[in-house]
Amino acid sequence: MPPPPQVAVVCGSRSDLAALRGCFDQLDAYAIGWEASVISAHRQPAALQAYVFEAEARGVRVFVGAAGMAAHLPGVLASLTALPVVGIPLDAGSLGGADALFSTVQMPPGVPVATVAIGPAGARNAAHLAARILALGDPAIAERVAAFRSDQASRAEPRIDPRAAS
Amino acid sequence: MPPPPQVAVVCGSRSDLAALRGCFDQLDAYAIGWEASVISAHRQPAALQAYVFEAEARGVRVFVGAAGMAAHLPGVLASLTALPVVGIPLDAGSLGGADALFSTVQMPPGVPVATVAIGPAGARNAAHLAARILALGDPAIAERVAAFRSDQASRAEPRIDPRAAS
Amino acid sequence: MPPPPQVAVVCGSRSDLAALRGCFDQLDAYAIGWEASVISAHRQPAALQAYVFEAEARGVRVFVGAAGMAAHLPGVLASLTALPVVGIPLDAGSLGGADALFSTVQMPPGVPVATVAIGPAGARNAAHLAARILALGDPAIAERVAAFRSDQASRAEPRIDPRAAS
Amino acid sequence: MPPPPQVAVVCGSRSDLAALRGCFDQLDAYAIGWEASVISAHRQPAALQAYVFEAEARGVRVFVGAAGMAAHLPGVLASLTALPVVGIPLDAGSLGGADALFSTVQMPPGVPVATVAIGPAGARNAAHLAARILALGDPAIAERVAAFRSDQASRAEPRIDPRAAS
Amino acid sequence: MPPPPQVAVVCGSRSDLAALRGCFDQLDAYAIGWEASVISAHRQPAALQAYVFEAEARGVRVFVGAAGMAAHLPGVLASLTALPVVGIPLDAGSLGGADALFSTVQMPPGVPVATVAIGPAGARNAAHLAARILALGDPAIAERVAAFRSDQASRAEPRIDPRAAS
Amino acid sequence: MPPPPQVAVVCGSRSDLAALRGCFDQLDAYAIGWEASVISAHRQPAALQAYVFEAEARGVRVFVGAAGMAAHLPGVLASLTALPVVGIPLDAGSLGGADALFSTVQMPPGVPVATVAIGPAGARNAAHLAARILALGDPAIAERVAAFRSDQASRAEPRIDPRAAS
Amino acid sequence: MPPPPQVAVVCGSRSDLAALRGCFDQLDAYAIGWEASVISAHRQPAALQAYVFEAEARGVRVFVGAAGMAAHLPGVLASLTALPVVGIPLDAGSLGGADALFSTVQMPPGVPVATVAIGPAGARNAAHLAARILALGDPAIAERVAAFRSDQASRAEPRIDPRAAS
Amino acid sequence: MPPPPQVAVVCGSRSDLAALRGCFDQLDAYAIGWEASVISAHRQPAALQAYVFEAEARGVRVFVGAAGMAAHLPGVLASLTALPVVGIPLDAGSLGGADALFSTVQMPPGVPVATVAIGPAGARNAAHLAARILALGDPAIAERVAAFRSDQASRAEPRIDPRAAS
Repeated sequence: MPPPPQVAVVCGSRSDLAALRGCFDQLDAYAIGWEASVISAHRQPAALQAYVFEAEARGVRVFVGAAGMAAHLPGVLASLTALPVVGIPLDAGSLGGADALFSTVQMPPGVPVATVAIGPAGARNAAHLAARILALGDPAIAERVAAFRSDQASRAEPRIDPRAAS
Repeated sequence: MPPPPQVAVVCGSRSDLAALRGCFDQLDAYAIGWEASVISAHRQPAALQAYVFEAEARGVRVFVGAAGMAAHLPGVLASLTALPVVGIPLDAGSLGGADALFSTVQMPPGVPVATVAIGPAGARNAAHLAARILALGDPAIAERVAAFRSDQASRAEPRIDPRAAS
Repeated sequence: MPPPPQVAVVCGSRSDLAALRGCFDQLDAYAIGWEASVISAHRQPAALQAYVFEAEARGVRVFVGAAGMAAHLPGVLASLTALPVVGIPLDAGSLGGADALFSTVQMPPGVPVATVAIGPAGARNAAHLAARILALGDPAIAERVAAFRSDQASRAEPRIDPRAAS
Repeated sequence: MPPPPQVAVVCGSRSDLAALRGCFDQLDAYAIGWEASVISAHRQPAALQAYVFEAEARGVRVFVGAAGMAAHLPGVLASLTALPVVGIPLDAGSLGGADALFSTVQMPPGVPVATVAIGPAGARNAAHLAARILALGDPAIAERVAAFRSDQASRAEPRIDPRAAS
Repeated sequence: MPPPPQVAVVCGSRSDLAALRGCFDQLDAYAIGWEASVISAHRQPAALQAYVFEAEARGVRVFVGAAGMAAHLPGVLASLTALPVVGIPLDAGSLGGADALFSTVQMPPGVPVATVAIGPAGARNAAHLAARILALGDPAIAERVAAFRSDQASRAEPRIDPRAAS
Repeated sequence: MPPPPQVAVVCGSRSDLAALRGCFDQLDAYAIGWEASVISAHRQPAALQAYVFEAEARGVRVFVGAAGMAAHLPGVLASLTALPVVGIPLDAGSLGGADALFSTVQMPPGVPVATVAIGPAGARNAAHLAARILALGDPAIAERVAAFRSDQASRAEPRIDPRAAS
Repeated sequence: MPPPPQVAVVCGSRSDLAALRGCFDQLDAYAIGWEASVISAHRQPAALQAYVFEAEARGVRVFVGAAGMAAHLPGVLASLTALPVVGIPLDAGSLGGADALFSTVQMPPGVPVATVAIGPAGARNAAHLAARILALGDPAIAERVAAFRSDQASRAEPRIDPRAAS
Repeated sequence: MPPPPQVAVVCGSRSDLAALRGCFDQLDAYAIGWEASVISAHRQPAALQAYVFEAEARGVRVFVGAAGMAAHLPGVLASLTALPVVGIPLDAGSLGGADALFSTVQMPPGVPVATVAIGPAGARNAAHLAARILALGDPAIAERVAAFRSDQASRAEPRIDPRAAS
């Protein structure tokens, strides 16, 4: 049985899901329970509000919002909950995701969004950031974060043959 | 007695009001009733929703949202009402308003925001745009828009002495 | 027989038409009559002026201009008519449409263009925005806009399996 | 006696401190213990490493890094600790802080920085974000975050006189 | 008596004139006749068309258009005349003139605008460019351009004391 | 026998030639003699200087420089000759040609480059601009420019079926 | 036997190696010994520090760091060594490498990175720059740099047939 | 008597000198001989060429070029000499120095410019970079660079009172 969801990942459209695969994989690697939803902040505002309250009641502790263009979803999540909200700007239009980055990160005082990098790199880091946050209260997750960091630190490759490698 | 408000202008903070002066002045010049409110999409989402429904019931026909940085207010207005929503991006951070412009204009399909220029120029044009929209159903406003355009068209100044003028 | 055109969509080149398909489809879905023209603000200024006056006389109530690069077409439309003008910036050069966005939205006071998002997302929203404007004076359109918004609001998908979905 | 520091704020130069005042004030308002240091990731890398290890041992649970230009400090913090790291990009050069924003947020997978807005707005949100994170394990902080959000939600100002207000 | 105008400088608003001073001064230095007008492409399109035709008939041979924000004026000039048109993007909004630059330079095929730098540097270069164009058919101007270039070439200052100089 | 070259087109690398095809075609359409060279401002500065002096002596009257990235070629041409220089910024790196545009257009006072749009659209406009300049002294070219503009003006397509057209 | 490494090229991930091929080829062409390593500044900070000290002890005289996105690697190299450090920003995300450029070049006073162009062009120039630096103390390299420059200077191609060439 | 100049700093206009003060001060602090010149790459190309050859013959070993807007000076220096060239982009127009940065750093293969940060921070780093380069062949300079780095490393300020400090 999977662990009960502690992280709720929300995006605004099914087409955003492909960019989020690394987030789901990394949460699984950390054995952190998660759930994913497709709910638009603009098109389904009432459903989003209902979902946030219900998920919070069920025990979700970190929200992750992912959106492209005028990416309001993470900010709206942060206005609906007092829990930490991570924002992943997606590269969904023709501006390379700069629009989504600005819309996600430039939040006004009082409504913080913990913004990570644009696209798949950010999706993976959203999972790492959620793990670091949850690890503060969960030694098992802290141990897995430490193990990940150790493993990562061991992978330096000094003095390779770049022509063979690439 | 002023005319009953047909245009509701909303911004997220008192510090935004100075940039909107041209909007209010131009609506007055068109003799279009308006009202102004300071309600943040993120900090007062419930109050914003209540206000939008109430204003709509009172007869407001066009909403204008003005915000800087991650400017979600116009988009949230457009998600709460089926009326036309005009968005004014404000130059409130250190990015020259490019953040507010992207956050206002790059809305996903189904939730349109009629975006005008950044800052005071846009504020004035929000009033002109609202007037053009209302003029479709109100010959008196249409006449005033026509008069404004005539007056404006008459102000060309060919062959001046630029050193005396500037 | 199609309804008489209330929305006139103009672009500057045949190569722009593909990006506008969503605009035409959505206007059809709203049963709003429309017509499309390829007239360049720069290459055919006289033809554009003649078309605008004639279309206005025929009963067109909203203009939509779509252009890429130095996208002057929506602004020129707004200088030729007192009707509401919606501008769609297109991604036609190598700058991701940022050039067209700035050229469309940064209009000087007195000549407003209701700018929507760059490219196909904006094309679809131009139709939604035109519908919201026309709905102010047409209860049948208002009803269809409401129905669209209801349908859209019903499509939230909480707690899906993202790997099956994407 | 002030509470023992749970949040460690680090910036690279004394000239950055003025922009961080809102961070310190908000942490005080939340009664969260904090400490501040001026240590450059580039000029004092050994001192930074020593400080991070020592602060972590003393009980710091969230790091906040603030830097302008090629803002590497938050990323270096995230490479030295497994704790959550919040990054505040500062507007310190001539590019409006876009350089610091990109340098802070575009971190590679495995080393997340929770980035907030550029400059003073971000500084204040770094405190709010730290509070939300600490609140997961501290009901007293959770209560204060809830109180802040309630107070904030009560400050809507519908239908004001903008000319008197601004 | 001043020489008959060969260069017609047009801007859209009186507030643009200050940035153009270097253009007028440099044309005077070249003893090239010029005239200046304040006519907006958007607010006075008919007056602009009338002016262009009339100026052309009077013997103007180069047009210079200067505008900020969505700077359509140079492009509209190029659509109204077959003469060479120089465009000066002005820094009039909050985007540092990037909006005016894109709006001026990114013209579609068939309607060229000879764009120079943003603001006062560009204003001066518009005069130099007009002089180079007119010099092709006017040996006296060619001589003055050559003299300017010689003088300019003579002003190198190798090995100065920068502290005394700045 | 082709007409003697009046326009000299220079680019810095063979890989730039493909983007310039429209320039050559349009000059041919105007029956304006031209020649093309691949000479880098940075790698072959002496050869460039020799070429410019020699071409000028042979009767070239307009130079066109095309370059990508740090596009110095047009500016160096303008520093070597008193003739009009047209600059075409090319989209040769990963910045969409914004680097080449800034490097071409932001010239200091005294050394003007008549900059056109980035890439193929600009290449074609470089030919149109050269034709407008040469037309001032050559009625046959003026006639061909007028014919081009007439033909272009006749191609408006009001009220088409966009689905058949695209 | 290859010459002992004087240039150490470091990048953060195997996927960066392809963009660096021109760097390795050019160093080979100059007969300058080099070595390549894949060590991340963020994921393997201890390994990076160890490598830098060891490489310096072995006789490396110039470091080259290449990274994309929040490209901290060159700056971290410059904080670990007193040798000259060349930085190559890579185009690894969705922002065209502007993020990597800002993160590499905008270094604070005291920790200089000699930044070259984004991507493969920069990779090749990193080799040329390293050669120019080493040539100050090595007449054989100076001779090879001079030969390269002579050869390069001889490749001008005036008056070609561009249609045959492209 | 000052040491004979090993570093030649060139800028294009007297107004650039103020931004370079940190460069001169830091070179003095390193006891490295330097000289400064105001020679424009565009307005005085022959004088620049003569100066470069003469300075090189006198023993200059590193050139520093500083320029704003379309900053060609560093690139032209790199095309005239085989010595290392450092480029300082200056913030001289309305684009925050992004134009100068792109014009300086995006050099084509074969003509490298070692680019540092925009403005005064870069000016200081140009001196540090020159020192690192010269230190390869001069143990006294190497010692002074090491001393600077030690001193710099000693200035960490953990756990200060930010309100007293700022």
